[in-house]
Amino acid sequence: MTDRRPTVRVVDDRASHRPDTLVVEEPLEIRVDGSPLAVTMRTPGDDIDLAVGFLCTEGVVRSRDDVRTARHCAGNVVGEANAGNVLDVALAPGTPTPSVDPTRNFYTTSSCGLCGKASIDAVRTRTVYPVADDDLRVPVETVAALPDRLRGAQRIFDRTGGLHAAGLFAPDGTAWCVREDVGRHNAVDKVIGWALRNDRLPLRGSVLLVSGRASFELVQKASMAGIPMLAAVSAPSTLAVDLAAEVGMTLVGFLRGNRMNVYTGAERVVAGHDSAPSAAEVGVGRQAVGGSPPASA
Amino acid sequence: MTDRRPTVRVVDDRASHRPDTLVVEEPLEIRVDGSPLAVTMRTPGDDIDLAVGFLCTEGVVRSRDDVRTARHCAGNVVGEANAGNVLDVALAPGTPTPSVDPTRNFYTTSSCGLCGKASIDAVRTRTVYPVADDDLRVPVETVAALPDRLRGAQRIFDRTGGLHAAGLFAPDGTAWCVREDVGRHNAVDKVIGWALRNDRLPLRGSVLLVSGRASFELVQKASMAGIPMLAAVSAPSTLAVDLAAEVGMTLVGFLRGNRMNVYTGAERVVAGHDSAPSAAEVGVGRQAVGGSPPASA
Repeated sequence: MTDRRPTVRVVDDRASHRPDTLVVEEPLEIRVDGSPLAVTMRTPGDDIDLAVGFLCTEGVVRSRDDVRTARHCAGNVVGEANAGNVLDVALAPGTPTPSVDPTRNFYTTSSCGLCGKASIDAVRTRTVYPVADDDLRVPVETVAALPDRLRGAQRIFDRTGGLHAAGLFAPDGTAWCVREDVGRHNAVDKVIGWALRNDRLPLRGSVLLVSGRASFELVQKASMAGIPMLAAVSAPSTLAVDLAAEVGMTLVGFLRGNRMNVYTGAERVVAGHDSAPSAAEVGVGRQAVGGSPPASA
Repeated sequence: MTDRRPTVRVVDDRASHRPDTLVVEEPLEIRVDGSPLAVTMRTPGDDIDLAVGFLCTEGVVRSRDDVRTARHCAGNVVGEANAGNVLDVALAPGTPTPSVDPTRNFYTTSSCGLCGKASIDAVRTRTVYPVADDDLRVPVETVAALPDRLRGAQRIFDRTGGLHAAGLFAPDGTAWCVREDVGRHNAVDKVIGWALRNDRLPLRGSVLLVSGRASFELVQKASMAGIPMLAAVSAPSTLAVDLAAEVGMTLVGFLRGNRMNVYTGAERVVAGHDSAPSAAEVGVGRQAVGGSPPASA
């Protein structure tokens, strides 16, 4: 997942020559039933998880039963340096092959009069899993501790500084799966693909933490896997918050040290240092609004 | 470009309710000659620059003469909240309409025997502008000062913490154009679109600075506009370095304070506090390698 390149290191105007360890970025072509569906720039490793996770978050598959086989195309390639950059997924009988038409079924109409609406719909996928009715509760100090746990589980970042990470955690903060990639969306797809291949979808009672910002795309990917809580070290966007509210997901941003902002679903972040029901019932969100439901409910 | 959302702000286990200012994220559908070509999640603003810049970095247009008109589709829309989310570009006569076939002309062959190669080719666009023979020279202290200048020119970041920025600079550090967006690639496309619409392509004698990491995609976009030097505050990937070396671009990473790593084209980063030729000729890269050409040459 890393490789070295010669580098001129400059401090003030003094220069020295030395190699630098960089994160590897390579294209992965994802083929479904023999047809190319997408090319993503990714860090090699966990490619099968990535491909299957991508198909899940794009709404092509919803459980491991929908996947017949997933394997690198490399077997047929002789002497090709980047032979591992194509991944073939065969869907199970009965699982529809996704359309590869240019608009990706994005456009419900080409009428200009509806184009704004069509454009929003274009980027929406619809989850088959309920997100809103998950009764997950996570102590606030457990949420606060997740970034350190994520960083502790990252294998590559310290060497390159160039990787995003995504981690899937239990309500008590146990790390189930941590993946790294040059692309934040790829790291999330790798985690979701891991869960799908281990037959753990929908991911009820889990928290997904991402190392950077929370975009619309990441909320959408989490929702496609039924994840009820997404936390991000940095800022969310408006559309990320709006989608989280719509699907009933808890969205935490600016998760740093002992601080965080809870944008939606604050009732799932609870006060109290133990897991006794009496403490857990005093939700941070409920505290803040004096017993009335949080804004996102 | 920003909007507010209700937030539960948590410090330790104390919670308070207050609105938070977030960066707006909305989809933009880019249509060319009436057909949808792409949907990008972007921060509204400078949409025409974004669309035209995207078409430039995708190889559809190469100068402003190739663009007949570019305008929001909103004129025909009544009562649509997101009416500004579609942008129509009409190409000039003689400029070929891009293919919107599903593989986007990505795949030179569907033969598995060449798939690795095809996959690399898939993501490569070819610039019409020479990058390698630009005789740009930038003093190392000017390069080091760019991040502060970029940050100073950012309008939104301080309020939201959620935006990437890209800035185009003269060799003396003068900022020509700074743009912000939730997507790093969009910020770059907005800058390049601005340059194209002002008839400044190819961007000889310029430096592009990006606030985050340097991916393959950003090097490619810079090369499509003929930009000879790309600097990034964070890490590059292997493929970013490899492409920069191939096209003859100077790539600077980890540009922080008085430090930077120069991965390729180090001869363009020169020592000396004045621009006198005798000082400028003592390139940092040349110093480091004792007079021999840098590794990327």
